[in-house]
Amino acid sequence: MFTIADITLHSHLLMGTGKFASARQLTETVKASGTELVTLALKRLNLQQKNDDILAPLQQLGVRLLPNTSGAKTAAEAIFAAELAREALDTHWLKLEIHPDPRYLMPDPIETLTAATELVKRGFVVLPYCSADPVLCKRLEDVGCAAVMPLGAPIGSNQGLQTLAMLELIIEQANVPVIVDAGLGAPSHACQALEMGASAVLVNTAIASADDPVQMAQAFRLACQAGALARQHGLANKGGSEGSSAVASSPMTEFLEAL
Amino acid sequence: MFTIADITLHSHLLMGTGKFASARQLTETVKASGTELVTLALKRLNLQQKNDDILAPLQQLGVRLLPNTSGAKTAAEAIFAAELAREALDTHWLKLEIHPDPRYLMPDPIETLTAATELVKRGFVVLPYCSADPVLCKRLEDVGCAAVMPLGAPIGSNQGLQTLAMLELIIEQANVPVIVDAGLGAPSHACQALEMGASAVLVNTAIASADDPVQMAQAFRLACQAGALARQHGLANKGGSEGSSAVASSPMTEFLEAL
Amino acid sequence: MFTIADITLHSHLLMGTGKFASARQLTETVKASGTELVTLALKRLNLQQKNDDILAPLQQLGVRLLPNTSGAKTAAEAIFAAELAREALDTHWLKLEIHPDPRYLMPDPIETLTAATELVKRGFVVLPYCSADPVLCKRLEDVGCAAVMPLGAPIGSNQGLQTLAMLELIIEQANVPVIVDAGLGAPSHACQALEMGASAVLVNTAIASADDPVQMAQAFRLACQAGALARQHGLANKGGSEGSSAVASSPMTEFLEAL
Amino acid sequence: MFTIADITLHSHLLMGTGKFASARQLTETVKASGTELVTLALKRLNLQQKNDDILAPLQQLGVRLLPNTSGAKTAAEAIFAAELAREALDTHWLKLEIHPDPRYLMPDPIETLTAATELVKRGFVVLPYCSADPVLCKRLEDVGCAAVMPLGAPIGSNQGLQTLAMLELIIEQANVPVIVDAGLGAPSHACQALEMGASAVLVNTAIASADDPVQMAQAFRLACQAGALARQHGLANKGGSEGSSAVASSPMTEFLEAL
Repeated sequence: MFTIADITLHSHLLMGTGKFASARQLTETVKASGTELVTLALKRLNLQQKNDDILAPLQQLGVRLLPNTSGAKTAAEAIFAAELAREALDTHWLKLEIHPDPRYLMPDPIETLTAATELVKRGFVVLPYCSADPVLCKRLEDVGCAAVMPLGAPIGSNQGLQTLAMLELIIEQANVPVIVDAGLGAPSHACQALEMGASAVLVNTAIASADDPVQMAQAFRLACQAGALARQHGLANKGGSEGSSAVASSPMTEFLEAL
Repeated sequence: MFTIADITLHSHLLMGTGKFASARQLTETVKASGTELVTLALKRLNLQQKNDDILAPLQQLGVRLLPNTSGAKTAAEAIFAAELAREALDTHWLKLEIHPDPRYLMPDPIETLTAATELVKRGFVVLPYCSADPVLCKRLEDVGCAAVMPLGAPIGSNQGLQTLAMLELIIEQANVPVIVDAGLGAPSHACQALEMGASAVLVNTAIASADDPVQMAQAFRLACQAGALARQHGLANKGGSEGSSAVASSPMTEFLEAL
Repeated sequence: MFTIADITLHSHLLMGTGKFASARQLTETVKASGTELVTLALKRLNLQQKNDDILAPLQQLGVRLLPNTSGAKTAAEAIFAAELAREALDTHWLKLEIHPDPRYLMPDPIETLTAATELVKRGFVVLPYCSADPVLCKRLEDVGCAAVMPLGAPIGSNQGLQTLAMLELIIEQANVPVIVDAGLGAPSHACQALEMGASAVLVNTAIASADDPVQMAQAFRLACQAGALARQHGLANKGGSEGSSAVASSPMTEFLEAL
Repeated sequence: MFTIADITLHSHLLMGTGKFASARQLTETVKASGTELVTLALKRLNLQQKNDDILAPLQQLGVRLLPNTSGAKTAAEAIFAAELAREALDTHWLKLEIHPDPRYLMPDPIETLTAATELVKRGFVVLPYCSADPVLCKRLEDVGCAAVMPLGAPIGSNQGLQTLAMLELIIEQANVPVIVDAGLGAPSHACQALEMGASAVLVNTAIASADDPVQMAQAFRLACQAGALARQHGLANKGGSEGSSAVASSPMTEFLEAL
């Protein structure tokens, strides 16, 4: 359970909606995931048409929509897209995503902070996708972002928490939820992120590209529950191997002698 | 779901019973874990006394007992302990554990193979704890062991899958269940082991030493379910970051121009 | 061999000058390291005094000085410090370092880009310390920085290349030298950075805190030479274990039979 | 500098002689590596012919030969091969290598210990290739092996120290030199092994498969020197990021105020 802008979320899994084979597969997967918050790319929607293939079923499911500005290369483009999304989707929640490079879709720290500052002023609940940069995350928090979404690894890479050392600092310093975004390729990665104190993870590729997305969504759901539980109830420290020294205090030989 | 010696197990989590604060805590934790197979150290039991503190409640729970030979330093000691266990606990299942060194409790490959060979002949269902050695695991399988239990990291270290590269080979080559034992310190570690194809994991310290063992057992239960599901339903490959190249095919600029 | 702003450097090791026990120890270590470029913190110099303890011997050694703006929390402070350094040390080379947080000394991406832009205009050769953020590094290059200095791990942590996945992207995309800065705790870390294509590394703590800084500097020198050589002459790919399949093509049995 | 069976070696790099394009390339590479001890596969030699292509030039170089029993699948085969080698090459030094599986060439712990025991009795100086198993290494030492050669990763995989956690225990407990064998794919891997206390490393594929084996041998030579120096002269501990807290004690603001 965690809170973004006064909204309490019970699921620690956010889901992206790209790369699914059909609208039907998408909605069944969203249901199986237990997510309460799904991102969707504005550019993929047919805003003129009320019964958009993707949008309508998502709205029926009752999950909160988090439109993203994927494809924006500058703050200006992102702000423009954000206003469009607010009007079209009737939500002021926004995943801010600005990536100038077409190849790796890495976020631009400068444009992201500029856009975030403006969008907060305009009343948006801003969740920025950003590099795992502790100072940047702090500044995004300082300008009023409702959460930060540092990347775990390049989008679509399935490599897991490659930015672990930086995520640790970000989580330690944050006063808003930290949602690990991008690169999570397996339920164990999601579980690990929650164990270390992330409030949530965002997963898309690993679910949508699985042989069976519905089952994989269920797997991520369970893994997130596991990670959150473990965080809450006190994981033992990762110790040196010395931790085991005391275990053998009553060796079998003593036992055998005692018979 | 997997099978050891004709017995089908639905839970992929085996639990050790050491280090718990009380018999009551132990039994509640076992229940929460959903495990169907628990190890117990022969040396900790009071075999003369029918209503042993630990044994009686476990038997009432209906979980299968897997006595271990922890403390044995040689094949002879382990075989002797195994026979005692079979008589006392009325089970011919056995976790074979031989570790000559009192400090790190690392298993002895030579004594373990010797004892396994003999115990299989004597009708035991033998599950040997062993180092993550692909040839040793194959030989243990060849002499008739019902599963192999290679270590992930030193016992009690909570370090996770430090022997990953070897576990991959072991799993690839095995015709019996591979159960990763020792060193798993977090649900994400258990999840990862199942994702990579282990049939099960054995956890003790990480659960028993948690602030709340019952909740941590539940966390491991969920993580194991997640890992098994993910394995079954097709995890996407861990790709290079190049995997993401195609994603930005329709950048925002195109979208904006289309308006 | 690599080039920064028309200056060719033969050593791939940059050295920081903090934390040494004495000026004498520092100069002997610099000599042993083979470095041609050393950073020094402006704030540690006594600029009024010609024969500053640290400065004078470094100047006699003939190594190029790279004053840093360590301690600056904003672009304005860094620019002011840069001008002071240029005047006092008679060099327009500058390591730009802006870190608002006193605890981890993580660099501020926004202030760093702002200051870099201005300092390049003022004629400085700017080498910015920055997070391992591919887009930021590209932008720093675009405004005219002579190199980029992404961090490997938190300063002083000795953890090595924790930001590996991001460094790979940075190196792939860069048209200026990439110098891995901060967190390198062992010669193997420096070697690895050069193997993967970094032009150089900057090391301070790991050398200055060693039992014998002079010998450790020599160790880093050798490791950098090794890494650069390996990069240049074609490291074999990190293969799966399948790479070894062909090796056993003529097993001993054939040999024995042939006798 | 370390000692095997009363022989002091100054180089920490052992080289394998397989996979080279020509005898000439091999000898030049051996020279460049600085190695004093090279392994060679008995099965590759033409023992009937005095001027064997590979053997003769190696003998002229003055390096010590370490014939291996590669290809042997059992203790008996290895012992037979060892006797042949002793007679043919006039050395009682032996790298014991027994791997039943043709695919990954993983060593057999049982056969290896059996053969080692017998070969020591027969007067050989035995250096066994083995899995990174702490108890096995201890037992090999106990039967009189002159060193142990645990694997870092599967042969030819170039993956580096995948068995790190086990190697640490092995090195901590050993009273004979620990030589990390197999899987080292880059000079940084060799450097890391020596930093953590290995006495030496054995490299073959990574050198022989490089674009320029002579230069790569030189790179490994330097990396080994670096790692050994670092080990000897006190690497600083890998600290948490807290290690850096004290660094910013005199922030720039103080400096600026003091002007």
